[in-house]
Amino acid sequence: MTLRVDPNRVYDLGHPLEMSMPVSPNHPGYRMALLRRHGDVMRADGGSASNEMIVMGGHTGTHLDGLAHVSHAGKLHGGIDAQIAQTGGRFSKLGMETVAPIVCRGVLLDVARARGVRMMSGGDAVTDADMELAVSTQRTDTAGSGAILVRTGWASNWSDPERYLGHASGVPGVDEAGARWIVARSPRVAGTDTMAFEQIAPGRGHALLPVHRTLLFEHGVHIIENLDLERLASESIYEFLFICSPLALVGATGSPVRPLAVVLQ
Amino acid sequence: MTLRVDPNRVYDLGHPLEMSMPVSPNHPGYRMALLRRHGDVMRADGGSASNEMIVMGGHTGTHLDGLAHVSHAGKLHGGIDAQIAQTGGRFSKLGMETVAPIVCRGVLLDVARARGVRMMSGGDAVTDADMELAVSTQRTDTAGSGAILVRTGWASNWSDPERYLGHASGVPGVDEAGARWIVARSPRVAGTDTMAFEQIAPGRGHALLPVHRTLLFEHGVHIIENLDLERLASESIYEFLFICSPLALVGATGSPVRPLAVVLQ
Amino acid sequence: MTLRVDPNRVYDLGHPLEMSMPVSPNHPGYRMALLRRHGDVMRADGGSASNEMIVMGGHTGTHLDGLAHVSHAGKLHGGIDAQIAQTGGRFSKLGMETVAPIVCRGVLLDVARARGVRMMSGGDAVTDADMELAVSTQRTDTAGSGAILVRTGWASNWSDPERYLGHASGVPGVDEAGARWIVARSPRVAGTDTMAFEQIAPGRGHALLPVHRTLLFEHGVHIIENLDLERLASESIYEFLFICSPLALVGATGSPVRPLAVVLQ
Amino acid sequence: MTLRVDPNRVYDLGHPLEMSMPVSPNHPGYRMALLRRHGDVMRADGGSASNEMIVMGGHTGTHLDGLAHVSHAGKLHGGIDAQIAQTGGRFSKLGMETVAPIVCRGVLLDVARARGVRMMSGGDAVTDADMELAVSTQRTDTAGSGAILVRTGWASNWSDPERYLGHASGVPGVDEAGARWIVARSPRVAGTDTMAFEQIAPGRGHALLPVHRTLLFEHGVHIIENLDLERLASESIYEFLFICSPLALVGATGSPVRPLAVVLQ
Repeated sequence: MTLRVDPNRVYDLGHPLEMSMPVSPNHPGYRMALLRRHGDVMRADGGSASNEMIVMGGHTGTHLDGLAHVSHAGKLHGGIDAQIAQTGGRFSKLGMETVAPIVCRGVLLDVARARGVRMMSGGDAVTDADMELAVSTQRTDTAGSGAILVRTGWASNWSDPERYLGHASGVPGVDEAGARWIVARSPRVAGTDTMAFEQIAPGRGHALLPVHRTLLFEHGVHIIENLDLERLASESIYEFLFICSPLALVGATGSPVRPLAVVLQ
Repeated sequence: MTLRVDPNRVYDLGHPLEMSMPVSPNHPGYRMALLRRHGDVMRADGGSASNEMIVMGGHTGTHLDGLAHVSHAGKLHGGIDAQIAQTGGRFSKLGMETVAPIVCRGVLLDVARARGVRMMSGGDAVTDADMELAVSTQRTDTAGSGAILVRTGWASNWSDPERYLGHASGVPGVDEAGARWIVARSPRVAGTDTMAFEQIAPGRGHALLPVHRTLLFEHGVHIIENLDLERLASESIYEFLFICSPLALVGATGSPVRPLAVVLQ
Repeated sequence: MTLRVDPNRVYDLGHPLEMSMPVSPNHPGYRMALLRRHGDVMRADGGSASNEMIVMGGHTGTHLDGLAHVSHAGKLHGGIDAQIAQTGGRFSKLGMETVAPIVCRGVLLDVARARGVRMMSGGDAVTDADMELAVSTQRTDTAGSGAILVRTGWASNWSDPERYLGHASGVPGVDEAGARWIVARSPRVAGTDTMAFEQIAPGRGHALLPVHRTLLFEHGVHIIENLDLERLASESIYEFLFICSPLALVGATGSPVRPLAVVLQ
Repeated sequence: MTLRVDPNRVYDLGHPLEMSMPVSPNHPGYRMALLRRHGDVMRADGGSASNEMIVMGGHTGTHLDGLAHVSHAGKLHGGIDAQIAQTGGRFSKLGMETVAPIVCRGVLLDVARARGVRMMSGGDAVTDADMELAVSTQRTDTAGSGAILVRTGWASNWSDPERYLGHASGVPGVDEAGARWIVARSPRVAGTDTMAFEQIAPGRGHALLPVHRTLLFEHGVHIIENLDLERLASESIYEFLFICSPLALVGATGSPVRPLAVVLQ
């Protein structure tokens, strides 16, 4: 094997995890506290170690939704009974430990750019036509792509949690027709740069999650949320080796991730 | 780019994370609790979501040690003042958010196999000679490898935490000469299949961590601990594309990871 | 009101909470981490504040069991449906916020002393006869006592978690006849100086909890576990004002407490 | 001892603890997750147990500030060196385990009522004159009171966290002259019905905490914050037996509490 990877061509698609980042009220906030600092306990040779305690959710920061995350009419993907699967306090089926690491071809569909805007507006739909437009504008072939990443430009709001969550403004996102367009391409995973992979109308919140239902429940397609796609977009990189290795949190419904796009020579 | 990755050739080098796994008493235990289960709140369309709260350490399960983890005589790697760096309750220098994702050539040095044993014994040293022996036995070239992974076979004890921690028995591991052998090859990261990347004598515990000092403090080489190298070893795979994308936990000293070895055609 | 309370006559019946204390494997370990230390952020006037993050269970350390803690055949105390009550992720009935603060007459039954031993042995039963013996030895009247505290002397093992948990040895405790003796006296709460208010045979663990069933489920009598009754016993104090003010943890099944015995002039 | 306590005369001065309560951004949010629900594991006799994991701060909800909470010019109360005391990751001096349970005479100074208002306004000062006015209006004798509780009426905002925190409006509270008036009466503890025992001007936040300095640092008087004094006030009860038994969180700077006022016959 002679593959050489240029570190400058490894694109980090995750946001850093810190207390100040946006968090949905459904999920626990993120906190990291140093349990031990240097100097607390000195070893005989002058060495010292520091470590921490972390509290977070499975859906903290940039994260992957597992198939146990959503149910419909009491069933998980594949018709698994949700009540039975969750008995015991962790999912005996479809937990995060069942998600194979993802290493596949990925594409970026820069819908904001295709529409000629810096960032889509709160409440905007990303439709099937939008994604077709991006495909043709970019001249990107989605065939054989295990990962389809959709950019709305909303990640520019990340540092302003209230704006990013968009309760008042709504949030742009893929609508149901768009979701069907995606699943028709049979990816393993679909990702985007907002808190929920949904079109959220102003003032509506997460009362309904039809795209989650289509992707996770009906088609078993994983979702990645809160991606940072800005550097890829700014360099007009639309095809890459996509890597996402979620933590194998046994019986959990999601995992924070730090996905990568790698451009090979 | 026409790279095709066979999912069967993506090797998961992490252990699943669950409450029952081995944990050093220095670090917080791992706990995952479902905050919301299916049926707790039903949406109007019959949909329901489940999520969780997780408590863990930065050094939980298979994890990467950041450079802020150890200090010597009050200094971090590069001579950074540890007290100043940790003021504020998170490291302002060398936190996990500064660790670039690792995508590079990796090699496995199967020292247990080179020695002709299933598993090394508690307290055994992995010396420079052991690693030379593995190199020649395996006919593996370490040149240009960003990741050097050392197998002792100890991962077979993972499901028995007391045995794995090895307070009574000691734990096999790289000694100081071995550490110098590793840093001479200038990897970005060195990994192994025990709780601490150290030779631990019976009854000794982690009173001194000379290899941490050599790798992290002196040479800025990251460490990955608690790797599962069994499948790689059983298939005699010694060279691969190594991938490790630690969470960008701002100001933290370590991160759980799920590293991958990918064998390309 | 002219009541004067002598601070030396306020007896603290709780153990301090720290990482090293005994914890049942069913419950999360206790961890306290300083989030902010003095000097992390200095105010303009030279002031600085420190604070912490705490992870614990409702049944950590000296604690009170709420009535939502145990069910029998799917029902909580009073015939409440357990599944319905717990839907939503916290108990809508019988949560800790429904436990009124306890300020009442309390008695200590020093069964170890009545038997003439320093500490009862692992697996010993505290029977109805034992408690009658304590009553007559001590000349204590249990009538009108809202709190009945039973001393086995086991608290002397507190600093040795393995011994205190007593997996191998068993643990002394009230048996079913003893539980009926207690409920016949209609207290609000019964307490003891072991991890579970049960007689635990050697090697048995908590496979069955018949006394919990009698007290909590059948009679709605709260339980306090892990009491420190040593100082009371050493001073031969058997009657007192008993105070226990559990945290009103909404929808939870238990709360750490620091109960008090106050001897009035 | 023949003291009889009427349960209807035990006043709960704590707010229930739940996720939706007000929390200062300096402190971790409160979360309670059921680890095990009824039915997750059934015992052979039809019994089942439920329990939980809780994340909180020492200053969550109604809580007591320990003396390690604030420092001035690097010193804790009594001239203790703050850096030395906090080395090790928990306070070796003045931690919550050193706070003796509080059982003493308490008084309520209903300053809102003395001023003839339902609730004081954001930013209002509670001065020494205000407390003198309350004393004379109520005809309450503060002599010999271990606990002085000051009511502003702000607890009516508790269910509206943004209003309660009062970033925009400011929050009413005792000013420095008021603090000196309190310490002149030598109580063990002073409490109030706001998040910080301070006068907070609109838009100012907690940049300076002069009253904390006076009470905690200079005089070693503990502070209780977020009290619910509404029922006491509505019944015009100004003198009582005050009880507060903080958790003995070893090395911590504060503890949630559920203080009580008991009116004896």
